[in-house]
Amino acid sequence: MIEYRNLRIAILGAGSVGAQVAALLLEHGEELAGRVGAGLEVVGIAVRDLDAPRTAELPRELFTTDARSLILGADIVIEVMGGIEPAREYIELALTSGADVITANKALLATHGPELFAIAEQVGAQLYYEAAVGGAIPIIRPLRDSLAGDRVRRILGIVNGTTNYILDRMDRQGDSLESALAVATELGYAEADPTADIEGYDAAQKASILASLAFHTIVPVDEVHREGITGITHEQVRSAQRSGYVIKLLAVCERLTDPETGVDGVSARVHPALVPASHPLAAVHGANNAVFVEAEAAGDLMFYGAGAGGVQTASAVLGDLVSAARRHVVGGPGVAESTQADLPILPISSVVTRYQITLSVYDRPGVLAQIATLFSEHGVSVEAVQQSVPAPVSGGPGDEPGGATLVIGTHRATEAALADTVAALADSPVVERVESVLRVEGL
Amino acid sequence: MIEYRNLRIAILGAGSVGAQVAALLLEHGEELAGRVGAGLEVVGIAVRDLDAPRTAELPRELFTTDARSLILGADIVIEVMGGIEPAREYIELALTSGADVITANKALLATHGPELFAIAEQVGAQLYYEAAVGGAIPIIRPLRDSLAGDRVRRILGIVNGTTNYILDRMDRQGDSLESALAVATELGYAEADPTADIEGYDAAQKASILASLAFHTIVPVDEVHREGITGITHEQVRSAQRSGYVIKLLAVCERLTDPETGVDGVSARVHPALVPASHPLAAVHGANNAVFVEAEAAGDLMFYGAGAGGVQTASAVLGDLVSAARRHVVGGPGVAESTQADLPILPISSVVTRYQITLSVYDRPGVLAQIATLFSEHGVSVEAVQQSVPAPVSGGPGDEPGGATLVIGTHRATEAALADTVAALADSPVVERVESVLRVEGL
Repeated sequence: MIEYRNLRIAILGAGSVGAQVAALLLEHGEELAGRVGAGLEVVGIAVRDLDAPRTAELPRELFTTDARSLILGADIVIEVMGGIEPAREYIELALTSGADVITANKALLATHGPELFAIAEQVGAQLYYEAAVGGAIPIIRPLRDSLAGDRVRRILGIVNGTTNYILDRMDRQGDSLESALAVATELGYAEADPTADIEGYDAAQKASILASLAFHTIVPVDEVHREGITGITHEQVRSAQRSGYVIKLLAVCERLTDPETGVDGVSARVHPALVPASHPLAAVHGANNAVFVEAEAAGDLMFYGAGAGGVQTASAVLGDLVSAARRHVVGGPGVAESTQADLPILPISSVVTRYQITLSVYDRPGVLAQIATLFSEHGVSVEAVQQSVPAPVSGGPGDEPGGATLVIGTHRATEAALADTVAALADSPVVERVESVLRVEGL
Repeated sequence: MIEYRNLRIAILGAGSVGAQVAALLLEHGEELAGRVGAGLEVVGIAVRDLDAPRTAELPRELFTTDARSLILGADIVIEVMGGIEPAREYIELALTSGADVITANKALLATHGPELFAIAEQVGAQLYYEAAVGGAIPIIRPLRDSLAGDRVRRILGIVNGTTNYILDRMDRQGDSLESALAVATELGYAEADPTADIEGYDAAQKASILASLAFHTIVPVDEVHREGITGITHEQVRSAQRSGYVIKLLAVCERLTDPETGVDGVSARVHPALVPASHPLAAVHGANNAVFVEAEAAGDLMFYGAGAGGVQTASAVLGDLVSAARRHVVGGPGVAESTQADLPILPISSVVTRYQITLSVYDRPGVLAQIATLFSEHGVSVEAVQQSVPAPVSGGPGDEPGGATLVIGTHRATEAALADTVAALADSPVVERVESVLRVEGL
């Protein structure tokens, strides 16, 4: 039974997510109203161009180019326009006018999140963002609420569908990076300019959001170490397969203790990593996302699903809308962000993990001993070495007569020690070339 | 900064979950207080026997046998004693006295949930139960909040760790049901009386809770169709493997339309089922749980983790505690259960799914044609037939000279049509025995 006034919903943006949000809300409005206890009235959709093509048919009279007036007449504002400005300005206007805001804008949250949360808290409004990470996968609420009584140790996330699609094709179809990217672009998984995805910027924004939530500590995106997948070669993918790994672009957020200083802190990084084929993350195929969480009491958890897509992301936005609308009906402030832990953010050099290093070496007696000595001098312990003298492949790294390939797996070592080791390897007279250095996660 | 009075926490029960809740709360109380903005003071732990052994060391002065007085002095009551009475009575007392309640008691929720939620709503208190399903896996909040703007079509859940452990051993170690159960008992995965687990009662309670949440409709546990795993044989598991399946005990909750009456409704059932080896649920090993959700907009999602265990379940309880405590600090009522959809609950006979039927037949000419006719007469369409004349195995179903085994996979058919077909097969002169009838889910 509905005994509450209609809630006025403003939608900013009618792109792939916005159009689906509006369409679903218009179609299922009555069902959602029943869940909320109040009608949900779409009062307008702010767009830049009234005549642009849309992915869903929407009543033309809802469109407006006057976002400000729309915002000032709304109870709840849904920001699905993306980009930093004017999205930031509009959200600030909405919050200060007392509206709750729902956003899917990870770029904005990763850069201006703390200031927006502070405004929301000050005026007693709420800022919801389930759709900002992992598309339809519920991960924000589980981290913020369900795991609020636990201590998250580590998050390993496949949080970018484009790069997962590309790496999965390289792994399963044997594609080169270039041809996998071309297919991804053709299928709409990659944008015309794929930089944000393949260089890891998108994943770094999500890592910033996940780390901030999980560790109750603001982790700005510029503190997230970032490496993209453009350096990943077909040969690395094949070599990973032979060693029982798949290569995934991971967002790794973890609590750690700096081995030098003993400082307890947190770290967030995005880079391609070797993941054991038996790890649940290795089975995440195509453009899907998954977030693997290691918590002190809960143990290992995984959240899996479609990481992007207009209608999938719209599901997360509408989940937030129901939450926001229920709060209007029952009254009272919502949940504030918790950043009380305020742990130090440690640089990438403090990170301790395992590595796999592939070297082209001159095939001379004593090479292995020299290289092993070099590792031990830098305090990096070797776990396994595989040596192969590959058949000459035209243009491949094994093309030089007499060359051999060494694949070296290390025990856990600091990034700093590893970097020194790699620098020394590159200078070593027995090493022809350092072919590849990859971190190993999830062991 | 903490500017709020201490919140008084009462714990009812100090079994495997209760002792861990108390221990973690005493150990991490300050950290959690920071997240909440108020101190969390354990004012007592109600037990039946002050001297019983505990899985964690706890200050003796906290124990009391006077649960009622403890409840009446608390802001938040954590019920982890289990069973129906006196748990029900204590929760009612706590709610009516204005305390928020956190429970892990699926048996109680599945039988008395609606009345307890009604009391909570009436007095403006909250009843939290993230730990009741899936142990540490956040599934209640995602269903209630994150997916509140979507339409859940189907849930396929592995929600009982004991039976998953047993079936996984049968699948991967080749154990018989009896020996797998013996190992499970020895390792503490199964209780001395395993009936609640292996007969599917525990899973049915969880199915009732999940279906109620997902479909915004009260689905009482006695409306959940229930079959346990005691009929599952080593031969069925091996035969499943040969067909590319694994056998899992599934809780299946779905929206469906009765094919006869055209009534739209919901259904919940628990039974062993064949799951394709490529389905994410097939990779859920050991005592782990996973809930696979198919939603209209979000697509397929999966939530995976430890489904039981004292400390894991304690993580979920403490997540609820932080939520409840935050609500005390910020004020205002919480979220009420949504049961407004109130959809009809359809009987198992309305369910439409696929089946695999294994028959021992007399090896005569024309047998296959007679059986195919019998299926078509009952409106069940055959998708695939595999016939084999097994080598005689002493005591096995192939021991009769001249006998053959037919494995028949069907297209989607109603339970009613299937039941009629199976009855007719059992009466057919060419069928020696119906060896096995299993539903196929997740295709």
